[in-house]
Amino acid sequence: MLGKFITFEGLDGAGKSTFIPFAQDVISRAGHPVVRTREPGGTAVGESIRKLLLDPSAQLSPETEALLMFAARQQHLQSVVLPALDRGQYVLCDRFTDSTYAYQGGGRGIPAEKLADLETWVHQGFQADLTLLFDVEESISQARLKQDRAPDRFEQEAAEFHRKVRQSYRERSIQYSDRIRLIDAGRALEKVKVDVEKYVLTIC
Amino acid sequence: MLGKFITFEGLDGAGKSTFIPFAQDVISRAGHPVVRTREPGGTAVGESIRKLLLDPSAQLSPETEALLMFAARQQHLQSVVLPALDRGQYVLCDRFTDSTYAYQGGGRGIPAEKLADLETWVHQGFQADLTLLFDVEESISQARLKQDRAPDRFEQEAAEFHRKVRQSYRERSIQYSDRIRLIDAGRALEKVKVDVEKYVLTIC
Repeated sequence: MLGKFITFEGLDGAGKSTFIPFAQDVISRAGHPVVRTREPGGTAVGESIRKLLLDPSAQLSPETEALLMFAARQQHLQSVVLPALDRGQYVLCDRFTDSTYAYQGGGRGIPAEKLADLETWVHQGFQADLTLLFDVEESISQARLKQDRAPDRFEQEAAEFHRKVRQSYRERSIQYSDRIRLIDAGRALEKVKVDVEKYVLTIC
Repeated sequence: MLGKFITFEGLDGAGKSTFIPFAQDVISRAGHPVVRTREPGGTAVGESIRKLLLDPSAQLSPETEALLMFAARQQHLQSVVLPALDRGQYVLCDRFTDSTYAYQGGGRGIPAEKLADLETWVHQGFQADLTLLFDVEESISQARLKQDRAPDRFEQEAAEFHRKVRQSYRERSIQYSDRIRLIDAGRALEKVKVDVEKYVLTIC
């Protein structure tokens, strides 16, 4: 792979939508071609799957959620991410497989070993070069969201769900400390940006 | 399980839509409550996934197809099939996992061992009590379809695809001869019905 794959993780409201464009600027200034994408989504079928997953009226078991996430991911990897990396681009992805472990694993209760089976099936060993985890108290992330728009299927879950998602993310950042950088996103914007820039530059 | 699960397999145009209602009548006359369903589909999300899969303009890799099939199946099993069997109903399903092996395996080329990983993940050992495979030359099934309507993503595939699907079905009927009954569906309607009735009555 000539390019690099950087994933952005965290609760909704943790600030990903602010820091991803900032990271994109940092990489561009370092002279690398960069593209942004997201999961679930990033392809035509992926965006259709995203609609199914986020629709507050959808009746989905946790296992169906997980399979749909990996179906979208499979197409996204094959037709968007891997070709861009082959062309030497830096690919910035808003959510990736850590989200599945955090939401369908930590939040919904699917055992990590069961998700690992699907990860192996779809990834075939592929991993991000760097993952930035924006960590924030669930009460803060929820308060930020409330000023915004109608909640989707995940956002409308109770505080306990988001607490478990955050806990799962934090545990993964310890388990995969070579790849995942935990960033305290409860601080002032400029302080968070300093960390984002520092970590991104390590692979530029 | 108090009920029985019967799946119906074969190429489009092999006659499933004629023989499933016939089987339903046979089971009703034998005094059992019976419901009909289909895959992909059978639930709200399953029908949405079905639309994605059959849309002739959709760009889907074979692996994405397989994951979507199993996502629809997971929800269908959990919320429709298993509850109906628990209630003691006979569940007749138009296509099930043998279709995935035949179309995504035989037709698209995904190795059977790879599909078996997903089957294990979703089925957890569950299998149909009886599978009726309507076997017909692909040229006959294709000719029957042509008089009908615009072809979906699978129907529009070349003859070679359907030949491989049929071959895969036939091989599975040998490998799983305890469960799958191959019925020559190229014969006159009444002769095929005799076989359908005979096999269905073995589990009534």
